[in-house]
Amino acid sequence: MSDHATIAIDAMGGDHGPPVCVPAALAMLEKNPRLRIILVGLEEVIRPLLNGNSERLSIVHASEVVSMDEKPAEALRKKKDSSLRVAVNLVKDGTADACVSAGNTGALMATGKFVLKTLPGIDRPAIMAALPTIEGHLHMLDLGANSDCTSEHLYQFAIMGSVVASVIENIDNPRVGLLNIGEEDMKGNDNIRQAAAMLADAHINYVGFVEGDDIARHKVDVIVADGFTGNVALKVMEGTASLVSHFIKKGFGSGLYGRLAGVVALPVLMKLRKSLDPRQYNGASLVGLNGIVVKSHGGADEVALQQAIRVAMLEVEKKVPDTIHQLLAESES
Amino acid sequence: MSDHATIAIDAMGGDHGPPVCVPAALAMLEKNPRLRIILVGLEEVIRPLLNGNSERLSIVHASEVVSMDEKPAEALRKKKDSSLRVAVNLVKDGTADACVSAGNTGALMATGKFVLKTLPGIDRPAIMAALPTIEGHLHMLDLGANSDCTSEHLYQFAIMGSVVASVIENIDNPRVGLLNIGEEDMKGNDNIRQAAAMLADAHINYVGFVEGDDIARHKVDVIVADGFTGNVALKVMEGTASLVSHFIKKGFGSGLYGRLAGVVALPVLMKLRKSLDPRQYNGASLVGLNGIVVKSHGGADEVALQQAIRVAMLEVEKKVPDTIHQLLAESES
Repeated sequence: MSDHATIAIDAMGGDHGPPVCVPAALAMLEKNPRLRIILVGLEEVIRPLLNGNSERLSIVHASEVVSMDEKPAEALRKKKDSSLRVAVNLVKDGTADACVSAGNTGALMATGKFVLKTLPGIDRPAIMAALPTIEGHLHMLDLGANSDCTSEHLYQFAIMGSVVASVIENIDNPRVGLLNIGEEDMKGNDNIRQAAAMLADAHINYVGFVEGDDIARHKVDVIVADGFTGNVALKVMEGTASLVSHFIKKGFGSGLYGRLAGVVALPVLMKLRKSLDPRQYNGASLVGLNGIVVKSHGGADEVALQQAIRVAMLEVEKKVPDTIHQLLAESES
Repeated sequence: MSDHATIAIDAMGGDHGPPVCVPAALAMLEKNPRLRIILVGLEEVIRPLLNGNSERLSIVHASEVVSMDEKPAEALRKKKDSSLRVAVNLVKDGTADACVSAGNTGALMATGKFVLKTLPGIDRPAIMAALPTIEGHLHMLDLGANSDCTSEHLYQFAIMGSVVASVIENIDNPRVGLLNIGEEDMKGNDNIRQAAAMLADAHINYVGFVEGDDIARHKVDVIVADGFTGNVALKVMEGTASLVSHFIKKGFGSGLYGRLAGVVALPVLMKLRKSLDPRQYNGASLVGLNGIVVKSHGGADEVALQQAIRVAMLEVEKKVPDTIHQLLAESES
């Protein structure tokens, strides 16, 4: 991955704000000699957290902070000098190549749409991220930006998903599936059946309907869903993984044998934990915007936030919005 | 649990048919001295599988079999002497107190609706089952019967879910939540917000919106969703649990240390496997029908099918359809 990029970070975003965002930024600068980072937020809070100076690090002051539970429309209307808004503005005016925020998802999406606009041919941006599978990971969208989707929206998500997975994973013609409750043509609702008919004629490798358990099975490279279903699927995955961890901890934590066995099994369990560590999947793209915006999990720690910055760097390198635009134009022609 | 019941079993249903259904029935008769079972299907196939006779076991011949991928409407129209249809007929005419089938879900639901009809006040039956949580299990519906649901349908599911969870779990006022993509009032779509408004006035313990990760967390006792979302959630849970098992097996199966650690950890891992064994959650109720119909997983083995029969017995004991009818009538008055 090339590290030739300037990333604006909403340093006030997320559950932890500057105490996590600043060290994550410093660590990424250390690891990537050509990366530049702009920390956006309350300068008086950010400045004291810097250990000395890096010429590749700058601060852009923003006087307001959007809270995690603020209504997106209100944040957009009332907080024009929020760290979230200013970070997106820096992408708009070309000062930054991308921005990363662990802040309010709805506000980030609303601000992204308002400031950057959507790409020509895209009605609605979607949230896209990598999810773990038995073969590594696949990409899924929409993970929660759009509760109600038409077949046209699902179609656009599929095109965008195919492009992003292709450039990020370096694979030709990624397999794209529509999330449904059965594989037969008649399954699901009118909306999804209509989207399937549209995708059968699209210039992507659309392979048909997939079901909830096909995510872990890695049946396709890209899974397309409306934002309601996608968000539920994502959170059910998180919940189920936690449930299993809970049972494992309980098993190895109870009784003398369990505890002793736990000590022996520890290295293997640590590896398991690493395989399932959600931090390595942090960083969801707001695809469909005319600019690169990456959403980090609100509760992200330093390690997780670095991963979100990496996602932004990769999208800069791969020029994701341009590529989507190009391929959309080609498939329309 | 009282075992005073007569259960009709669609012996031809599921991926395995009689070789699994018959031994499961015999095992349940052995364990429950007052249980009676009627095996429905091709007598010439079933009879040779019986080990001697039980006066509590009988066979009702049915000349046709509905295949797993048959269209429900066609099965209903063309196969009037299928084992699935005859099993449901036995409930209708009072010969059996309940029926259990591992067959085609859509056909079972369509046949149940056609033969038994829905309870007064219920527009659509739903599929309801228990799911594992950190505190045991909770109940969720609809798991796939209805792809499109109005707010009125969701409302009815919530009432039915509350009744069934209450009688089956012996708890007063089970907490009921609507599955959504956030907890705030504004989240989701119009449909779900309208259902929430209706439930706020219902005579059940409706506690609000819950998210996908609240299932494992056992935030409520009953989770209500449309059949599309519910089915995706169920299958994502199954897929994620398999994914974790896969990583565990891989971890303990690779390298000398991993394999040795696996031997030591085996008893704990076996307990974990038991905690997550989907067979103990087999048996989904088709709630809202004027009769008790339990759907077993198509791939169910003997152990799993016995669990589905247990669910049917419990619903007979608790008179589930009558109780739903009564409580609906009370809450309407």
